[in-house]
Amino acid sequence: MRFQRIAIIGSGAVGLYYGGLLARAGREVHFLLRSDLDTVREKGIRLLLPNENVHLHPVNAHETTASIGPVDLVIIALKTPANRILTQLLPPLLIPRTTILTLQNGLGNEAFLADHFGAGRILGGLCFICLNRTASGEVTNLHKGSLTLGSYQGGNDERPEVIAEVLRSAGVNCRAAADLREARWRKLIWNVPFNGLTVAAGGIDTEELLAEPALTVEVKALMREIQASARALGIEIEDAFLERQLEVTRTMGAYRPSSLVDFQAGRPLEVDSIWGAPLEAAREAGVPTPRLSLLHALLNKLNPAEN
Amino acid sequence: MRFQRIAIIGSGAVGLYYGGLLARAGREVHFLLRSDLDTVREKGIRLLLPNENVHLHPVNAHETTASIGPVDLVIIALKTPANRILTQLLPPLLIPRTTILTLQNGLGNEAFLADHFGAGRILGGLCFICLNRTASGEVTNLHKGSLTLGSYQGGNDERPEVIAEVLRSAGVNCRAAADLREARWRKLIWNVPFNGLTVAAGGIDTEELLAEPALTVEVKALMREIQASARALGIEIEDAFLERQLEVTRTMGAYRPSSLVDFQAGRPLEVDSIWGAPLEAAREAGVPTPRLSLLHALLNKLNPAEN
Repeated sequence: MRFQRIAIIGSGAVGLYYGGLLARAGREVHFLLRSDLDTVREKGIRLLLPNENVHLHPVNAHETTASIGPVDLVIIALKTPANRILTQLLPPLLIPRTTILTLQNGLGNEAFLADHFGAGRILGGLCFICLNRTASGEVTNLHKGSLTLGSYQGGNDERPEVIAEVLRSAGVNCRAAADLREARWRKLIWNVPFNGLTVAAGGIDTEELLAEPALTVEVKALMREIQASARALGIEIEDAFLERQLEVTRTMGAYRPSSLVDFQAGRPLEVDSIWGAPLEAAREAGVPTPRLSLLHALLNKLNPAEN
Repeated sequence: MRFQRIAIIGSGAVGLYYGGLLARAGREVHFLLRSDLDTVREKGIRLLLPNENVHLHPVNAHETTASIGPVDLVIIALKTPANRILTQLLPPLLIPRTTILTLQNGLGNEAFLADHFGAGRILGGLCFICLNRTASGEVTNLHKGSLTLGSYQGGNDERPEVIAEVLRSAGVNCRAAADLREARWRKLIWNVPFNGLTVAAGGIDTEELLAEPALTVEVKALMREIQASARALGIEIEDAFLERQLEVTRTMGAYRPSSLVDFQAGRPLEVDSIWGAPLEAAREAGVPTPRLSLLHALLNKLNPAEN
C-alpha cells in the first residue's frame, strides 16, 4: 500500500488545503480545478496557516481527470449537490488498487461511491476545521482542527490508519476511527442544528443563534432527535457529547457554518446529505424526528439551487 | 343595548372595511387614523367590493381617542404587536356600557383586554376574509368572506348575536358562535401552518407552499399539533375540518397570508398571538408540539421587529 500519486477532486477550500499540505510533504498531488484553474497554473496555491504561510508553485493543475490518469488515492472534496458528476469524473483515475476517500458532509456519500465504484475501495473522512477560500487559489486557516478517517466496509481494513499516517506526516491532525458510521452520526449532532438553524433563522451566525434562548432550546431538541436516530441504528452517543458540542460552539464566537456560507453566496445547500439522508434513516428506523422533518422541508425550499 | 356610536381602533384594511360598511349602513362611526389621516379627511374612504365601489365622504377621522369620546362599541383592528398602546388609547372611549370587540388574530387578545378593562365587556371576532389596503384610505375585497363573533365570558351574553345582526344589516356575512375559544382554535388550524410556513420557507405564497410535498406534510403535521392542543383544553376539532382547510386553501390560488404580507413589508409579525400563545397553552397542557416550537423560535428571529 503506497499512496504517492493523489488526485484532489473538488478544489475549494477543503481540497486546496489537504492537497496543498500533501504536496508540500512530497506527495505527487494532482488538482482538478475549474474556476481557479488559470490562477493556480500561473501563481500556484497559497495556504495562510496559523503559524506560517505556504506557497506551492508550480502545481499539477488539471482541467480534466483524463489528463491526471490513474492514481493511488482520490480525495473527494466536492460539495454533495455535485455528486452526480462523479460517475463521469472518476473512471480515468481508477485502477484496481485505487482508494477513494470522501471528505464530504453528511450521510450517503460513501454509499453512493460504493454503488458506482465498489465498496471495497471506499473510505470516509470527517473534517472538523474552519477553512476559508480567501482568494482564487488561496485558503486561510486559523485553527488547525482535526480529520477523522474510517473504512466504509469496516473489518480489518488497514488503509484508514496508513492514510492517517500519510496525513499526519503532512502536518494534519488526523486519526483513524474504528466505526465510520458512528463518526458520521456524531458529526450530524453538530451539523444538523447549526448548519440548519443558522440558515433557516434568516442567515445568522452561531453566536447570534445561541443568543436566542428559544433557538438554543431547538438546537438541543434537534441534537436529541439525531441521538435517538443513531441509537435506533445501534450507535450510542452519550449526553455529555451533546453538551460538549454546545459548549465548544459557544467558544467559537461568530462562526458561520459551511451551509450558511453557501446560502449567503447563493450556492446550493447540502440538503440531502446533511438533513435528507438522516431523516430517511430515522423514518426507516421508526424514530419520530418532527423538528428534523420541518427543518428539512424548510431548507429544501430555501435552498438557492431550488430558486 | 344599542350600538350606534362606534369607534374603529386600527384603521388598516380590516378597520376601514368593517367601519366603512357600518358607516354606510347609518351607524355613527369614528375612525382613529395615523398614516391615512390626511387622505381620509380630504378624500374619504373607498371600498372596492366584488360588485360595487363604495365611497364614503366626509368621514369622522380622528387623530386621538380623546377627540372621539365615549362610544357604545369599540372595534379593535390593530396588529397585535401594538397591543400595549391600547391601555392608553382606550380609556377615553369607555363608559360602563361600552363593549369592546377585538378582531385581532390569534390567542390572548381578549384576555389582555379583559385584564385591563374588565372581562364583562369583551367580545372577540374572527375574520375569514381577504382584504388588501390598495391605497391610502382604500381597501379592495374580492370575496365577501365571513366574520364570527363570540363572548369572552360566555354564558347568556346576547351581545354577539345583537352585534352580528348590526353587521349583517351592514352587509357583512356575520354569525355569533356559541364558543369563542373553540372558534379561535379552529382558526389557528389554518393560521399556524399557513401564516408561519409561507414566511419561514423564504416568503412564498400558499400555492407555492402546497406545491412542495415535503412542506404539505409539515402543514398537516402542524394542524395535528394544534388539534391535539385544543383537545387537551376540551375543544374537539374533527379531522374533516383539517382536511377541509387544506382543500379550501388549494382553491385560493397564490394567496399571501397576512403574516407574509407584513413580513414582506418589513412590519412586525404577530408572533406572540399566532404562535407564542398557542405554544404556551400546549406546554401548560403537557401536549408535545415540537414543530410549533421550532416554527415559533424561527419566526421570533425572522420577525422584522427584532432586526
